[in-house]
Amino acid sequence: MRVSVIGGGSVDDETAKVAEAVGRELAEAGHELVCGGLGGVMEAACRGAAGAGGRTIGILPGRDRGAANPHVEVPIATGLGDARNALVVLNGDAAIAVNGGPGTLSEIGLALVYGRPVAGLDTHDVDGVEAVGTPAEAVAYVESEVGTGSH
Amino acid sequence: MRVSVIGGGSVDDETAKVAEAVGRELAEAGHELVCGGLGGVMEAACRGAAGAGGRTIGILPGRDRGAANPHVEVPIATGLGDARNALVVLNGDAAIAVNGGPGTLSEIGLALVYGRPVAGLDTHDVDGVEAVGTPAEAVAYVESEVGTGSH
Amino acid sequence: MRVSVIGGGSVDDETAKVAEAVGRELAEAGHELVCGGLGGVMEAACRGAAGAGGRTIGILPGRDRGAANPHVEVPIATGLGDARNALVVLNGDAAIAVNGGPGTLSEIGLALVYGRPVAGLDTHDVDGVEAVGTPAEAVAYVESEVGTGSH
Amino acid sequence: MRVSVIGGGSVDDETAKVAEAVGRELAEAGHELVCGGLGGVMEAACRGAAGAGGRTIGILPGRDRGAANPHVEVPIATGLGDARNALVVLNGDAAIAVNGGPGTLSEIGLALVYGRPVAGLDTHDVDGVEAVGTPAEAVAYVESEVGTGSH
Repeated sequence: MRVSVIGGGSVDDETAKVAEAVGRELAEAGHELVCGGLGGVMEAACRGAAGAGGRTIGILPGRDRGAANPHVEVPIATGLGDARNALVVLNGDAAIAVNGGPGTLSEIGLALVYGRPVAGLDTHDVDGVEAVGTPAEAVAYVESEVGTGSH
Repeated sequence: MRVSVIGGGSVDDETAKVAEAVGRELAEAGHELVCGGLGGVMEAACRGAAGAGGRTIGILPGRDRGAANPHVEVPIATGLGDARNALVVLNGDAAIAVNGGPGTLSEIGLALVYGRPVAGLDTHDVDGVEAVGTPAEAVAYVESEVGTGSH
Repeated sequence: MRVSVIGGGSVDDETAKVAEAVGRELAEAGHELVCGGLGGVMEAACRGAAGAGGRTIGILPGRDRGAANPHVEVPIATGLGDARNALVVLNGDAAIAVNGGPGTLSEIGLALVYGRPVAGLDTHDVDGVEAVGTPAEAVAYVESEVGTGSH
Repeated sequence: MRVSVIGGGSVDDETAKVAEAVGRELAEAGHELVCGGLGGVMEAACRGAAGAGGRTIGILPGRDRGAANPHVEVPIATGLGDARNALVVLNGDAAIAVNGGPGTLSEIGLALVYGRPVAGLDTHDVDGVEAVGTPAEAVAYVESEVGTGSH
């Protein structure tokens, strides 16, 4: 399956390690990763996924796909600004949120609007988001909600 | 100024009364109202604003501007689906949230991304949202944050 | 009805006069005008319409609704860049093209995709666009195709 | 580099053969293909590219990435309707148009707005579009305009 990883664009080392582990776990389980393509949680998750041989898709707010972080395999430019947040969560079968501010909150809201299961690691406390303690639990949660096959 | 009113698309009578009062207070203070153009909080707020002679703008998810509620004076069709939530809050100088589910949550997040002050009436408990008790307090809060002139 | 006026963002005096007349004729016939909200044909058409008491709506590419030309009564910011061209023609019941370059060409294409009648004044020669000689003929054409009532 | 292939969503066998050859030539030259992800020219071009081992990206109008044709390797759902046409051409360094109706015309216009070189095979006669006679000439033209390296 394909999983959206959402979170802050600028994060501390601890949060980056968590995001990187989320990316690695997703790739090792055979899942694609889609994110907003920029820095912070997005970059760390892509680094983890790419390092484990997984595909990474970055859906960017701007018009220049060269703005993607270096671990994005398939950059998609939108030119839509923050309206692209809708596309980030629409393109996953589920979402994993790691930390994050109001942009992440908007993506959580949109993921729930689209009916996507959402696992949360140290993120906003929102009805409908499953708070989990580790990257492995986050992946296990979204797999159990969507079904484990790659699709 | 122009204020985004956001909230659930299907609400109970009590919440509708609150939303209607928000619309009326905004219009009486000389402000324009922008919303998502559909039912529930959007329709009640438009009814209140239109009844007090205020302008109402509805930014719709679909392609048919005829889908707007009858109290929308200027319907704008987008065909963007839920990505239109970004436009709803971008087009206000501030936002007032009334109740609401995940769609409203996404709008709160986007309003904060855009740096808009947000007042909340019985809505999500989010850092950066000013929880207020009455429609008049909501209008007073956004006026104080943006400046009281119509602009 | 509501009519999209599309055309170049920077035009010579002759073309501006034509666009202004289109705006004036639309307003005098009781129609709303929607356009991209910026300069050139958009500004001239809005000036004509506003001068005749008609409503003008400007759907802007950027995030700042203050970027609208001064004759736009209802500015709508999108932050979508050139993707907003779709919204400009979606929000009219018909379109009138005046001169214009590739942006106008994209709007003509999208208007036809949406099934809108398009009248053209000195613009691209495209199948499905009715070439007319005067602003009055342009307005008459779109009225005859859509029906003359304000709707 | 990455090249947008644009054209009709439902085409005759002759046009499909041309589109398939465009896709094959692009892939054999090491380029990625991006298109609107649906049928007709889009599907034929993806078939040609995928058959030659090239990457194919489909940027879809709807919300369901399962609507992509079977030769799309990386489907991207947008939910933006026809406004997604802007993303199709924004995501290529150049465009090749094959036949096509008003949707293709809108993409040609947007490609030119974005400053993309456009080669045309039996398509709209538009200033700025280089009319070519064969798929190989189309690929050679966009390579010469953008530079031949994969980037």
